[in-house]
Amino acid sequence: MTASTTQRPLSVTVWNENVHETTEPEVRARYPQGIHGEIAAAVREHVPDADVRTATLADPEHGLTEEVLAATDVLTWWGHRAHGEVADEVVARVRRHVLAGMGLVVLHSGHLSKIFTTLLGTTCNLDWRSGEDRELVWTVDPTHPIAEGIPSPLIIPEQEMYGEFFDIPAPDELVFISSFSGGEVFRSGCTFRRGHGRIFYFSPGDQAYPVYHHPGVRHVIANGVRWARGHAEQRRPPELHRREAGWFEGTGR
Amino acid sequence: MTASTTQRPLSVTVWNENVHETTEPEVRARYPQGIHGEIAAAVREHVPDADVRTATLADPEHGLTEEVLAATDVLTWWGHRAHGEVADEVVARVRRHVLAGMGLVVLHSGHLSKIFTTLLGTTCNLDWRSGEDRELVWTVDPTHPIAEGIPSPLIIPEQEMYGEFFDIPAPDELVFISSFSGGEVFRSGCTFRRGHGRIFYFSPGDQAYPVYHHPGVRHVIANGVRWARGHAEQRRPPELHRREAGWFEGTGR
Amino acid sequence: MTASTTQRPLSVTVWNENVHETTEPEVRARYPQGIHGEIAAAVREHVPDADVRTATLADPEHGLTEEVLAATDVLTWWGHRAHGEVADEVVARVRRHVLAGMGLVVLHSGHLSKIFTTLLGTTCNLDWRSGEDRELVWTVDPTHPIAEGIPSPLIIPEQEMYGEFFDIPAPDELVFISSFSGGEVFRSGCTFRRGHGRIFYFSPGDQAYPVYHHPGVRHVIANGVRWARGHAEQRRPPELHRREAGWFEGTGR
Amino acid sequence: MTASTTQRPLSVTVWNENVHETTEPEVRARYPQGIHGEIAAAVREHVPDADVRTATLADPEHGLTEEVLAATDVLTWWGHRAHGEVADEVVARVRRHVLAGMGLVVLHSGHLSKIFTTLLGTTCNLDWRSGEDRELVWTVDPTHPIAEGIPSPLIIPEQEMYGEFFDIPAPDELVFISSFSGGEVFRSGCTFRRGHGRIFYFSPGDQAYPVYHHPGVRHVIANGVRWARGHAEQRRPPELHRREAGWFEGTGR
Repeated sequence: MTASTTQRPLSVTVWNENVHETTEPEVRARYPQGIHGEIAAAVREHVPDADVRTATLADPEHGLTEEVLAATDVLTWWGHRAHGEVADEVVARVRRHVLAGMGLVVLHSGHLSKIFTTLLGTTCNLDWRSGEDRELVWTVDPTHPIAEGIPSPLIIPEQEMYGEFFDIPAPDELVFISSFSGGEVFRSGCTFRRGHGRIFYFSPGDQAYPVYHHPGVRHVIANGVRWARGHAEQRRPPELHRREAGWFEGTGR
Repeated sequence: MTASTTQRPLSVTVWNENVHETTEPEVRARYPQGIHGEIAAAVREHVPDADVRTATLADPEHGLTEEVLAATDVLTWWGHRAHGEVADEVVARVRRHVLAGMGLVVLHSGHLSKIFTTLLGTTCNLDWRSGEDRELVWTVDPTHPIAEGIPSPLIIPEQEMYGEFFDIPAPDELVFISSFSGGEVFRSGCTFRRGHGRIFYFSPGDQAYPVYHHPGVRHVIANGVRWARGHAEQRRPPELHRREAGWFEGTGR
Repeated sequence: MTASTTQRPLSVTVWNENVHETTEPEVRARYPQGIHGEIAAAVREHVPDADVRTATLADPEHGLTEEVLAATDVLTWWGHRAHGEVADEVVARVRRHVLAGMGLVVLHSGHLSKIFTTLLGTTCNLDWRSGEDRELVWTVDPTHPIAEGIPSPLIIPEQEMYGEFFDIPAPDELVFISSFSGGEVFRSGCTFRRGHGRIFYFSPGDQAYPVYHHPGVRHVIANGVRWARGHAEQRRPPELHRREAGWFEGTGR
Repeated sequence: MTASTTQRPLSVTVWNENVHETTEPEVRARYPQGIHGEIAAAVREHVPDADVRTATLADPEHGLTEEVLAATDVLTWWGHRAHGEVADEVVARVRRHVLAGMGLVVLHSGHLSKIFTTLLGTTCNLDWRSGEDRELVWTVDPTHPIAEGIPSPLIIPEQEMYGEFFDIPAPDELVFISSFSGGEVFRSGCTFRRGHGRIFYFSPGDQAYPVYHHPGVRHVIANGVRWARGHAEQRRPPELHRREAGWFEGTGR
């Protein structure tokens, strides 16, 4: 029976480079607990049985040791200024865990993170403007669990503009499309499967705007975390298998 | 919070035309409780908190009144010989409920049912052979909840062959692909979204073979039922709305 | 070799209900040749070797006899006020031809036509406003032939608003997303496969605005017509085949 | 008008590691011109106006200089034993050209090449057996240009088995599914878009079997080459753009 896996508390690691908050007072004022603190709080609000921890760039191994990842069901990722400082070795480790079944929720400027571009294979470039745009987030897949309970549109009064063309593979599911006051559009909520892992990208959110205090944005992130949980029985990436003819006889009931 | 909806018992209606079982002794011997009885049992085994009822063609309004559908989270459909006897009015009612958010699990020869072809828009034709084929069901989307706990391949020792070309729209998710001893292949587990509703088609299963006693097949059907549950707050199909400019102001938090 | 089929002139039938133009002088002034006349001209401009004819609701059998459809590679469809007056028999005939390999390009308010909703299976409802919106059409699949040569964004100074939620199945390919001055977004260029046929839906265009004179819109429509051409050797919908074991031996080189 | 680009001869570069042929006499006997020679011949047969050249691992820069790639519309890739010997710098160059609009056709054991796994983001692992399997290749998307003129099934009398789970992202289009005598299935013909580039993966073909002499296999490869051609006006990957509000005014007709 499958019910067992869904009853264990969901183990979430919220990762943040935590550079803006520690170097820019106005960002610190906006996010006194750091962006990771807000995201962790959002998950706790909506997934009461979640076990949420945080990790940052400055931690040894960025806080993403083999032990931490092995115990993580879903990892969330926020980065912007310091993508290049994330160690390749850690990126390879995270990638292996995603392919093996760990969920990954990539937020906002994480689109240019090494882990996201490596898993997607494209540049993940886009158009942007740090102006005075209002963002509206429209649901285009109302059957998706990530859209559950989310008003359409979400109204984000002030936000950085992210616009098309967004260089990603066609998402497996397109959940949200945003418009901006300036007229641009963006595929702002997208899912991807890679190996045994599920990935959700959600663009709203920025260090320069109070977007992570927005109730609807917090709700989406929490839904995304819940959705990204995998069910792989063993945490192992897909492997190359040499098979004899009839290897499966005796299995498969 | 979304947790509430997932805690209410899942309400399932298992529909079967129930013609083979009532007119062919060998089918009755194979399925003494009817195919609907086996499918209901399969759901109860794997979704202990489900509230499962059955309905058949011979019931008034085929057992699918407005009241029944309004109280149904997921409907499963088995038909073969009597597709033409299902009243158009009932088909229209089921369609409306699916578009409004009711889940639908269509099994085996239900591919030619009015409700399936109406929701998909294509002929849903295929190749078939009632011979002595073994079917192997391979998982090609291991991240999908319907594949959770299912061995790959499932081995079904005797089964009717269903082969490509299967005239369906490209599925939103392709979960299983089957092969048959004769060499044919078939997209045997497919999901589709229509309106606010989720549809799962699963081909293994036949009146002439004991397929619905197969533990793996039963598990897949139960997973499909659980997956197909919707979350629409109101049971209403998408509507045409004339909108004033700025109609959404004041909503969207 | 496949080259032969692409060298025969492309045979296009442009269908229009032609009701606004014949009953409203201001629409007639905007489209003196009828909307069908403009669409036919757009196709001829961009596909010089096309053989383009037109047909309207008032023609016997709406101009869509078996002979006409059998000789049509791609049919374009514009309707709005008179969807209900299109004979079910003609709709069934068009559907059969699409499933058998005829291309179909559905324009603007054709989203509620019988032929489109029948092939898609959903309500195809949406939000709308006949106001003073500017529409911007953004390319999100730059590899698609329908996007070839099309600037991103296309700017349509005045246009009816069509907004999400647009109740369609997830498109096989999402080529364009539009925004409107009012902030709404819309999946404005979508492809679907049904049977052996290809379908392109493109939303820009209205009787009340001069959208079909817009060079970019004309170019997209012509690209869509070219893309929708099928290659089925015989014009036949997919069929149900009973197959003997080994039926394919001797074929398949 | 778009016609111009399709009239220029198609420029194709056929790449092969060319290791088996130069070190194993029985492979040399099977493919006296090398696998690249056969693939080039297949393209020439079906795309008479193509300009086809070949390149191999042993060439300086593996024959894939900036000049060669800049002049290539579509690159085909065959590798097996020497994936690790392909220089990372060349892989990065090929990747940049694909994202910028060059087509890529990856064949058989190329699934583990650096270029394929880098563009897809997954392990691309699979099950395999070098036994005595017959492969049947079934068309599941009859509207796709790559399926044009291809019988379903293609029958390949002797072939290496490639089976699921194949660790790739869900393909944008699934064109072919294969079965093998041993009962395994495989998504054998898949398309992917990355940046401005189109990718086709086709699994039939091996150094140990005469698969590249099979007329149907040759036809599929040629169709894939033709399909993969891009239309980007400039060969440039998608870029990050900072945009002023209203930047698009004056464009977009």
